Amino acid sequence: MSTSPPRPAAATRGPVRVVGTGLLGASIGLGLRALGVDVVLHDPSRTTLLLARDVGAGRLPTPEDPPVELVVVAAPPDVTPDVVLAELEAHPHAVVTDVASVKTAVEGPLRAAGADLDRYVGSHPMAGSERSGPTAARADLFAGRPWVVVGSEASAGSAVLAVRTLATDLGATPVMLDAATHDDAVALVSHVPQIAASLVAARLVDGEPAALELAGQGLRDVTRIAASDPGLWTSILGANAEAVVPLLRSLRGDLDVLIEALDHASVATAAEEVATGALGTVAAAIAAGNTGVSRIPGKHGGTRRAYDVVTVLVPDEPGSLARLLAEVGAAGINLEELQLEHAPAQAVGLASISVLRGLRSRLEEELTTRGWRVAG
Amino acid sequence: MSTSPPRPAAATRGPVRVVGTGLLGASIGLGLRALGVDVVLHDPSRTTLLLARDVGAGRLPTPEDPPVELVVVAAPPDVTPDVVLAELEAHPHAVVTDVASVKTAVEGPLRAAGADLDRYVGSHPMAGSERSGPTAARADLFAGRPWVVVGSEASAGSAVLAVRTLATDLGATPVMLDAATHDDAVALVSHVPQIAASLVAARLVDGEPAALELAGQGLRDVTRIAASDPGLWTSILGANAEAVVPLLRSLRGDLDVLIEALDHASVATAAEEVATGALGTVAAAIAAGNTGVSRIPGKHGGTRRAYDVVTVLVPDEPGSLARLLAEVGAAGINLEELQLEHAPAQAVGLASISVLRGLRSRLEEELTTRGWRVAG
Repeated sequence: MSTSPPRPAAATRGPVRVVGTGLLGASIGLGLRALGVDVVLHDPSRTTLLLARDVGAGRLPTPEDPPVELVVVAAPPDVTPDVVLAELEAHPHAVVTDVASVKTAVEGPLRAAGADLDRYVGSHPMAGSERSGPTAARADLFAGRPWVVVGSEASAGSAVLAVRTLATDLGATPVMLDAATHDDAVALVSHVPQIAASLVAARLVDGEPAALELAGQGLRDVTRIAASDPGLWTSILGANAEAVVPLLRSLRGDLDVLIEALDHASVATAAEEVATGALGTVAAAIAAGNTGVSRIPGKHGGTRRAYDVVTVLVPDEPGSLARLLAEVGAAGINLEELQLEHAPAQAVGLASISVLRGLRSRLEEELTTRGWRVAG
Repeated sequence: MSTSPPRPAAATRGPVRVVGTGLLGASIGLGLRALGVDVVLHDPSRTTLLLARDVGAGRLPTPEDPPVELVVVAAPPDVTPDVVLAELEAHPHAVVTDVASVKTAVEGPLRAAGADLDRYVGSHPMAGSERSGPTAARADLFAGRPWVVVGSEASAGSAVLAVRTLATDLGATPVMLDAATHDDAVALVSHVPQIAASLVAARLVDGEPAALELAGQGLRDVTRIAASDPGLWTSILGANAEAVVPLLRSLRGDLDVLIEALDHASVATAAEEVATGALGTVAAAIAAGNTGVSRIPGKHGGTRRAYDVVTVLVPDEPGSLARLLAEVGAAGINLEELQLEHAPAQAVGLASISVLRGLRSRLEEELTTRGWRVAG
């Protein structure tokens, strides 16, 4: 049984030059190679370059190479402008793009340097991994992900099209944004959450083991991305500081208010007198979070609140979750989201199945009939 | 096919009186009723009380009732001490416990009031739901979760045993802690993460729709618990302010340092001169998060780093995830963790399957052979 739709031929024409063959660059190479595109690799580190070639991301350049049509710069954000500039000069007929996760900090220096901006279009595939380097690369890293394409007013339409086509060829969904809008957006949905996760996780460094044993799915979810690479994130945050800092200041403002309110509440516990408004302040902070999280789009463009959730006990043995989901499918009910949770030293896990609103009782009935234990 | 192990008879003897029949109280009632224990319900709200009776959580008291053996107070943290005190007086031979998520703020007032502490043992089941009230109650809400049991030096051994037994009867794992240790622990692993999630989510209130469309699994994970109930959390945070505030101050200290460092980096972008140490400060903050998150115990007592992750493309149709997991199970490989992700407007999702270290290449081979597309 194959679940892969047949792969279309690439609309991207070769040769494509990939500069920087870490996780992203090598994944782009692998994806294009799978479509039959000629990919020429370059990396300042010869080890990284040869590793990328060996995993099949492309080939080394030769003196007889035809002129490249497209250059993809996949370097850390802080060195990206210089590399893009050099590539624009070295390949005077090629479209050049980069995949750095900040865009103003790339576009600005290029503009200041008088670069040939009609052939440059920035981009940012919203994909990655906790792993890094060419050996972690995947042809399908970008499948199903948004890929932001940042055309400036100087970009030629054909250059924008070439970058959109690259994204589409690699299975991503192109999203057109200008550089400032992109940078504000990723500060909000990626950079500030990263910092919050890291700061919460940093509190755990001195936590008692007994305390950490009480960790539930809430803590695990909040801190998962705190495992990300410090070097990469320093480069990202440094390059997008102008968009990140105002959001952090606003977060700190809310935090200050909350600390003051809880300080009053703390005193009140002893003195049995609650400062007027202190608890209202706490409630307002949690309620604002309710409003914010409800704005995150769900799978079908709705919000997560549009789902009913059914939680089921699943024995911790090979195949038991599969059996559960097979029976959900057999009932003709599509699973929208799935979360797994388990407690240490327990031979049972909890699977929280999200289904479209209105399907909860039918799913519960179907599963209970089949002998599953539905939990809270 | 039944996946439920046969239920043992309850070791808890009845009648058990449950005071407060919201989500937790009604779930305790349902769980005990399923074991054949006589459960008598009470709630200050007659509507909540009758709803709990109607979902099968227990019965109303009668004048002929035998003396209760155990009283479970499941009230909001701020009213719990008064309710516990009243129950200790009304039932002079019963063991009384409560399930409030803070413990010093309950034990302190009881001690000050000269309560009969040898019959009181606090507790805190680490379970809950975004939903509330008796209609959200589940007999299995506590299955597989830690249940903190807080005996003071005044508690009788038999009283501690009664509460441990209650936890075990409901499928939970008892964890013995003193009140202060419990409160510090939940501040660290639950209350501070809740506040961080709410503050990050609150930033989204004014976010552009285009920005929210770029939201990935990172933002979703960090903000999931921001959907929790403001009223309940105000009571929890107010009652545990003394443990929460020092952690928040320490988080704010780190945040201040980070904002200052990024401010320098931001200026540097324009002036091309990076303040000494500014970027090192950013890297240190992310690295501290790495260390912290690695301390969270995983399923088998290890850390999440002990898993290999394989990401697979899954068509968005009923049964396809089940087929995938069936083939993982058929390969004899146990799934340790599972995360689902999907992009808006894409007919495909990404399933990240965590398996024990060393199993990655075998799983990838098995799945690729069966026609699945393995992504990055």
